[in-house]
Amino acid sequence: MTVRAAVAGASGYAGGEVLRLLLQHPGVEIGALTAGSNAGQRLGALQPHLLPLADRVLAATTAEVLAGHDVVFLALPHGQSAAVAEQLGDGVLVVDMGADFRLADAADWERFYGSPHAGTWPYGLPELPGARAGLAGARRVAVPGCYPTAVSLALAPAYAARLAEPEAVVVAASGTSGAGKAAKPHLLGSEVMGSMSPYGVGGLHRHTPEMIQNLSAAAGERVTVSFTPTLAPMPRGILATSSARARPGVDAESLREVYEKAYADEPFVHLLPEGQWPATGAVHGSNTAQLQVAYDEAAGRIVVISAIDNLTKGTAGGAVQSMNLALGLPETSGLPATGIAP
Amino acid sequence: MTVRAAVAGASGYAGGEVLRLLLQHPGVEIGALTAGSNAGQRLGALQPHLLPLADRVLAATTAEVLAGHDVVFLALPHGQSAAVAEQLGDGVLVVDMGADFRLADAADWERFYGSPHAGTWPYGLPELPGARAGLAGARRVAVPGCYPTAVSLALAPAYAARLAEPEAVVVAASGTSGAGKAAKPHLLGSEVMGSMSPYGVGGLHRHTPEMIQNLSAAAGERVTVSFTPTLAPMPRGILATSSARARPGVDAESLREVYEKAYADEPFVHLLPEGQWPATGAVHGSNTAQLQVAYDEAAGRIVVISAIDNLTKGTAGGAVQSMNLALGLPETSGLPATGIAP
Amino acid sequence: MTVRAAVAGASGYAGGEVLRLLLQHPGVEIGALTAGSNAGQRLGALQPHLLPLADRVLAATTAEVLAGHDVVFLALPHGQSAAVAEQLGDGVLVVDMGADFRLADAADWERFYGSPHAGTWPYGLPELPGARAGLAGARRVAVPGCYPTAVSLALAPAYAARLAEPEAVVVAASGTSGAGKAAKPHLLGSEVMGSMSPYGVGGLHRHTPEMIQNLSAAAGERVTVSFTPTLAPMPRGILATSSARARPGVDAESLREVYEKAYADEPFVHLLPEGQWPATGAVHGSNTAQLQVAYDEAAGRIVVISAIDNLTKGTAGGAVQSMNLALGLPETSGLPATGIAP
Amino acid sequence: MTVRAAVAGASGYAGGEVLRLLLQHPGVEIGALTAGSNAGQRLGALQPHLLPLADRVLAATTAEVLAGHDVVFLALPHGQSAAVAEQLGDGVLVVDMGADFRLADAADWERFYGSPHAGTWPYGLPELPGARAGLAGARRVAVPGCYPTAVSLALAPAYAARLAEPEAVVVAASGTSGAGKAAKPHLLGSEVMGSMSPYGVGGLHRHTPEMIQNLSAAAGERVTVSFTPTLAPMPRGILATSSARARPGVDAESLREVYEKAYADEPFVHLLPEGQWPATGAVHGSNTAQLQVAYDEAAGRIVVISAIDNLTKGTAGGAVQSMNLALGLPETSGLPATGIAP
Repeated sequence: MTVRAAVAGASGYAGGEVLRLLLQHPGVEIGALTAGSNAGQRLGALQPHLLPLADRVLAATTAEVLAGHDVVFLALPHGQSAAVAEQLGDGVLVVDMGADFRLADAADWERFYGSPHAGTWPYGLPELPGARAGLAGARRVAVPGCYPTAVSLALAPAYAARLAEPEAVVVAASGTSGAGKAAKPHLLGSEVMGSMSPYGVGGLHRHTPEMIQNLSAAAGERVTVSFTPTLAPMPRGILATSSARARPGVDAESLREVYEKAYADEPFVHLLPEGQWPATGAVHGSNTAQLQVAYDEAAGRIVVISAIDNLTKGTAGGAVQSMNLALGLPETSGLPATGIAP
Repeated sequence: MTVRAAVAGASGYAGGEVLRLLLQHPGVEIGALTAGSNAGQRLGALQPHLLPLADRVLAATTAEVLAGHDVVFLALPHGQSAAVAEQLGDGVLVVDMGADFRLADAADWERFYGSPHAGTWPYGLPELPGARAGLAGARRVAVPGCYPTAVSLALAPAYAARLAEPEAVVVAASGTSGAGKAAKPHLLGSEVMGSMSPYGVGGLHRHTPEMIQNLSAAAGERVTVSFTPTLAPMPRGILATSSARARPGVDAESLREVYEKAYADEPFVHLLPEGQWPATGAVHGSNTAQLQVAYDEAAGRIVVISAIDNLTKGTAGGAVQSMNLALGLPETSGLPATGIAP
Repeated sequence: MTVRAAVAGASGYAGGEVLRLLLQHPGVEIGALTAGSNAGQRLGALQPHLLPLADRVLAATTAEVLAGHDVVFLALPHGQSAAVAEQLGDGVLVVDMGADFRLADAADWERFYGSPHAGTWPYGLPELPGARAGLAGARRVAVPGCYPTAVSLALAPAYAARLAEPEAVVVAASGTSGAGKAAKPHLLGSEVMGSMSPYGVGGLHRHTPEMIQNLSAAAGERVTVSFTPTLAPMPRGILATSSARARPGVDAESLREVYEKAYADEPFVHLLPEGQWPATGAVHGSNTAQLQVAYDEAAGRIVVISAIDNLTKGTAGGAVQSMNLALGLPETSGLPATGIAP
Repeated sequence: MTVRAAVAGASGYAGGEVLRLLLQHPGVEIGALTAGSNAGQRLGALQPHLLPLADRVLAATTAEVLAGHDVVFLALPHGQSAAVAEQLGDGVLVVDMGADFRLADAADWERFYGSPHAGTWPYGLPELPGARAGLAGARRVAVPGCYPTAVSLALAPAYAARLAEPEAVVVAASGTSGAGKAAKPHLLGSEVMGSMSPYGVGGLHRHTPEMIQNLSAAAGERVTVSFTPTLAPMPRGILATSSARARPGVDAESLREVYEKAYADEPFVHLLPEGQWPATGAVHGSNTAQLQVAYDEAAGRIVVISAIDNLTKGTAGGAVQSMNLALGLPETSGLPATGIAP
């Protein structure tokens, strides 16, 4: 059986990455490709790295064009997914790489996104407790945000094992592709090369409630998250430093054991051997999350470092992994565990 | 049938890249991995991006360890390949990613490399006229240098069609991985980021005689090459600007036609549509060479731009492509035509 | 005496750089700062590195605001300088960092810029033969383009000494600031980091006629230039490789002698010792041009490498150096010969 | 009066930067330049950006060579400063850019550096409460570490005003020059470009006790610091995110007021206007520290972002500023408040 896939928003970074992965997926045939303002253009002019699709012409994003596929990936601006999904009907698997259906709490959504809440779909981070089961056979999937992917993988085991106090502090560095392909002055190469800067400081970033949702679920109690995202001079990758006060009795061994157990069978989450630390360069283009844990005795804190490729595991890889689970394909199909380095 | 492959020099950049490609090759099983000073280490500590091989331990490079494979890839310092190859015997395909067997002229070899000439093996650039036939069934392959790959693909069609005077001028920018993984002060990140610099100016670079050899063969006459390599602040990629005076009668249309015809059936050489220019970022991690041609009427010159990934098409991809041809496998097996961007 | 300076276009890269230099100029007081669409904003929001001027508010660019200064620096889009200069009158020194008054040939101007020729002003590259005299006491100065600065310094001595055939081949890499601060998708950090690409190939770049003009003047005959500019993943710097066939009798010694003599007394052009090569990283933020020459005997070509900071010696440094000469100030005032590295 | 300065360790990054600043200092004449393994070389071959000193030849580092200057800057490996300082006598100002004399607690020193404690010198961070007075007339100065500079400036005001709980969490990104100029594989351009990675996680970094010392002094109680340093793909700059739980009664206004007051008169610490965030690119080459504060109400934390140039304010700028204070020169002499951007 070959799955026929359409991609809405094929000219952007998330759309391009999902196409890169689908091109190497043995069970997928690429169908309609659509775009907003880039409709009518050759894909080769916009995504020159996707050589096998260079001569495809982008259609306008409409339900008509997207209908008739087994799966539709949505890489649309926030707020546009609901209308498209509704028109596609329940027979089609819709995988939304946008934020619209990630949050369970309508008030959170409205506070951070400023528009009415569209609903909540099964959450596409299968490595979270219980999530894999919720994806099997799903017809709708909300792919997690890139930062929440890195941070939830980092801290969920500690919270699930009750090792950490419910006040997490997270500082993460992201490559510039996380900010998208729309041309803005502060994202110019001249501005970002050689410079690091923060944004959304003080709890303002939209991914904060999503982290809180995931970590609170793991902890079984409300967890607060102080989250500071920073922009790093690299095109891809997220390096997250996540920490929390250790509960009494935690030590380095027990901490490591919890993480070894949590991810022993996960194909895409790799706890590094002791003494080796994650690097975004080691997961460039791969669906792997690298993790390492430390117990800082003097400060009394658990520190977890996680590295992912924001466009692969953090977006399009998570989307394809979720599709595989939803359609009953092998979970790892089309998903590289190997990165490109140097 | 599964081909069993060994890699000598698995801890360096060329060795790591050939492993990355072999991991996705449907007909290859990865056997022995060897190294020089890194023997005894886990591959995961040296090539953390090659997750499926992380627990492999590197053996010392000896003929005993390398024996018993169908193909052995050599990523060794110059001058060491001959001894290893000799011990392996004729039953094994040996693909040398070093320079030892590239040059036909012993005097050229000695002038540029300062050691006795080891010999000449079939040349692993199948897109050159006649080269593909020479690779079928070969037991030894000399993989071209990265710069000669970019430059020969750029100018061979013009010379083969007698469009250009036999004095080529080439300026190329390379990513730092071309300089290898040995730690040298001028290759520190602090030194290379934000800076471009030349080296080997004035005909001193060792790839110069290899370019001359290839272009002269295409032209049917001796071609001189003024070659200036530069180091660019990026890990991978070569962008080569190759030009030569046009012969009388050349115009933009006839020039383009020659290139369209030369590469019409090549899976890994892509002449871009008019108006679009190569970028190394578009071939990152792919085995594709992007080309574009221009005729500068005012200056009377043919200008060809080529972009490759120095480690893929320029080294390890060329090696795997050659292996495929030598062993009668599909030429494109294991070789991505798709890059990773951004 | 303190010179009062105004800067029109203070929110862009050229305007910002001229302000950086003027801030350290002992004889200059900074007066009006103007902008186009950024008028009304604090400079600190747009140029946060210029801390001493952070609280200045940008005025709209009008002759009224710019009047009453001793010198006005224009960093305006092409075609806007003439009107402003006219209104300022002859009592004010006007230093134009745009292209409007660089070319002597009206037909060249119209072919490359597509608008009527505004005229020709004294050319602000004092290191060219005769240029310094033309700047003394000037009331109008046309600052050279960044590429022509790098290339003219590289080849003018060879042409003036009749060492080279009149067909130059130039390939240059520029940092992204050369493309300005307007947000365009291909200049996003995500696109430029890790990638090199050419543009304006085949004689199309607007700086080509300016190079031809300068080199032809030095040679005393018409010189053709095949020019290929490339965009490099760095914010600043130009590395130019300029070459030409050597005339009979040239050798390495005579070549070097000519360059030693040409620049012996120049404060801002530095011929490196033999064996050392220019790097843009070594002139970051400095007004120095680094040069090195080679004679490639096998190819019969003179190869000259030059490195400048495109915003300093290539734009704003050249502007301040010209102002110094025009106003009779010490030529080196306010101009760093020292770069920032690493 | 002109101060005569010697620099020991002139071939490294800290030594080069102190020379860059001294070259623009109106009251300093540069005397002896020494090095370890680079003794005997031209400075121009090692620090090509320091054009005015290019022909200086490095002497071996001995007390004889360094004697007879008014000030000696030491940029030596840890553990070597005490012996040199002793031989120089009390008549000379010795400014140590190494770690040897920063820590007051001998046990801390021994735990983190593994060698006997050499002593404690006046601490060269004049912006800390009381520090400026301690530097006036000093004959010995210990220049702070780069990370402690960024973090102490960020959190000292909050602790001095009793706004924060004594458990700080700090994650900082540093440019690669912080790791020095010795060639190590993990610092190669190929490895660091496009990648972020942590090191010294879990309280292991040697700058941790220095931060604790400074913040505890400000707080009047023992402060713990969970510190995670990361390596960013840029040559210079530190961006530190420092946070702590807010004490009851803190709000955004009171927080801002404390910082405004703390740094109102500081020439080199700049609290940005509300809504603007620090960027390392804005302080490239400058002695300025940019700060911004936020109160994250939901998480109950004070978050302070600081950006410095690790080589300027973080090392050599701090050294020159301290020299100015010790010798009674204007504090800002030779120190740029302006950065180079983009």
